[in-house]
Amino acid sequence: MLSQSIKCIGNLTNKARHMSVVASKLKYDKYGEPVDVVKLCKEEVSDPVNNEVLVKILVSPINPADINTIQGKYPVKPKFPAVGGNEGAGEVISVGPKVTKVKKGDIIIPVATGLGTWASYAKFTEENILKIPGNVGIVEAATITVNPCTAYRMLKDFVPLAEGDTVIQNGANSAVGQAVHQLCKAMNINSVGIVRDRADIEDLRKHLCCLGATAILTEEEIRTSTIFKDRLKKPKLALNCVGGKSATELTRHIDSKGTLVTYGGMSREPVTASTAALIFKDISFKGFWMTRWTKENFNTEERATMFKDLFNLISEGKLKAPIHELVPIENYKDALDSALNFKGFTGKKYILDFSKS
Amino acid sequence: MLSQSIKCIGNLTNKARHMSVVASKLKYDKYGEPVDVVKLCKEEVSDPVNNEVLVKILVSPINPADINTIQGKYPVKPKFPAVGGNEGAGEVISVGPKVTKVKKGDIIIPVATGLGTWASYAKFTEENILKIPGNVGIVEAATITVNPCTAYRMLKDFVPLAEGDTVIQNGANSAVGQAVHQLCKAMNINSVGIVRDRADIEDLRKHLCCLGATAILTEEEIRTSTIFKDRLKKPKLALNCVGGKSATELTRHIDSKGTLVTYGGMSREPVTASTAALIFKDISFKGFWMTRWTKENFNTEERATMFKDLFNLISEGKLKAPIHELVPIENYKDALDSALNFKGFTGKKYILDFSKS
Repeated sequence: MLSQSIKCIGNLTNKARHMSVVASKLKYDKYGEPVDVVKLCKEEVSDPVNNEVLVKILVSPINPADINTIQGKYPVKPKFPAVGGNEGAGEVISVGPKVTKVKKGDIIIPVATGLGTWASYAKFTEENILKIPGNVGIVEAATITVNPCTAYRMLKDFVPLAEGDTVIQNGANSAVGQAVHQLCKAMNINSVGIVRDRADIEDLRKHLCCLGATAILTEEEIRTSTIFKDRLKKPKLALNCVGGKSATELTRHIDSKGTLVTYGGMSREPVTASTAALIFKDISFKGFWMTRWTKENFNTEERATMFKDLFNLISEGKLKAPIHELVPIENYKDALDSALNFKGFTGKKYILDFSKS
Repeated sequence: MLSQSIKCIGNLTNKARHMSVVASKLKYDKYGEPVDVVKLCKEEVSDPVNNEVLVKILVSPINPADINTIQGKYPVKPKFPAVGGNEGAGEVISVGPKVTKVKKGDIIIPVATGLGTWASYAKFTEENILKIPGNVGIVEAATITVNPCTAYRMLKDFVPLAEGDTVIQNGANSAVGQAVHQLCKAMNINSVGIVRDRADIEDLRKHLCCLGATAILTEEEIRTSTIFKDRLKKPKLALNCVGGKSATELTRHIDSKGTLVTYGGMSREPVTASTAALIFKDISFKGFWMTRWTKENFNTEERATMFKDLFNLISEGKLKAPIHELVPIENYKDALDSALNFKGFTGKKYILDFSKS
């Protein structure tokens, strides 16, 4: 009951409490390739004051946006020196005297971006963290705010979907893609995933179908597929993280008045919207950026509902963490390198393990 | 008071009334180039029965969609043999016994598509025509349902616009473009028009600014213009009838969260939506097709309001007919040829004059 005793102590200064800790942090002070510019530093973290919370970070994933931010290619520009990372999960060690919502021992996740989560200890202000329910796994918690939230919002905010409707997506093996298939299954919505052909395609197909995909097709297979004539309704919603020809192929299958939502551009090619698709099929082309949504909806009821829904799905075993590998903090260079160069059949998520540091 | 006398006559057969007329019609029975496949025919038109209305067509314009329909390039497929044309204005000659809303002598416009208006006489059912107010000119009436209605809906249905906001459009000298500038002026909205450079650019600039354009810039001028820094708010709405690079240039100027609406594709190139514009600027790319809107909103209050608003603007002198040339029906081949090959500084509208045939 540390939070209560802190309140009793009142004006006692930080110094008097001698609670400071030494954190391992992955920092960078200029843009560049992550393996070149990110350094492991040791820094003292002072005691939490006011509404601050000192957290022992346990795990923190490496997301593509983290990499792009370090490369200087992302529209969010950090103030140097910066600590990398935007997601994580950790245990509350101590809290400032004005903190009311969490206490020592709680497991929390940061729910704002740009806080710097690649560190063994970090201080967050109370409004920027969320206590997670006891039955939610630590990796699921640490990977919820970017990818499952993106999947959730794209399924909720663009097109009204009813049971039996269809969603199509490319990059179906991405972390968002894996979440989309699981959320669709929970919503009784058909989800068709498109992936690039590869040596272990059958394993990938099996894995994604186990997660909840209705069908997984390669870029080649979808071109001649009759699945939307024979088995499923034409998709009202298409989710695109590739762009270029892959997005054009998705568009070809969308039902009249449907929407293509772009949330990534892995091919580095733009989305091409034909005049006929726009005018005669009435297809809308929109974009989604979780960072902006979070900023615009920070304290909304809608956001609280989203986290509640996602935590419930995790508790019920309906939403699993993406395929991942835990990497001890000492091996961070390998993790950064691997995150840049996906190997294996899914875009495996590399998660920094700070639990022993 | 023919309509009343018809009601009194009751079961009198058509034959007995001897009201049939001989119409000159521009018909085609296969797809092809309009000058090749469209023929001038004479055909008897029988008396109106039930809720039919016999109309002496006075004028009927040639729109690009009419040309594309004859070429077989439009998604609306006529039943052969077909009469060309979708707009017009005419005088009621006689009405069937069940007609209640119009009477002999009324000036009407057809308000459904595909009725075949390139004819000196035509029969329409009562629900497909609209009586126009006495102070609305015949050419304004005959050209209202395609272009001013498209402009009106695009300004109303996509982005909430307030006084002082800005709209940008390419193809600013098109019939829709001319209507957009006039409607924007009536709404106290700034409208910036983009046109291709040409010999008589200063005359065109003057003409469009007289109609209500805030500024007219060439495709070259907009690339380096600082108008949205110096003078005007960044546009929330962009209207595109060109596609390709011209649409990309419009997109570059749209404010965050703005919308690009495509209603034509004169360059025959698609709209390119960059991943950054979609995700980070949250720009939406949509399409508009008047034919679909009309079908979906045929008997709505919204549609009645639109016609009332447009008729009022015409009456007040705030909405003028597009630059046009009346062509006697005998010279229809010249008109079709000219409509295919725009000459002069605006996309002049060729209007078939049936008043003397």
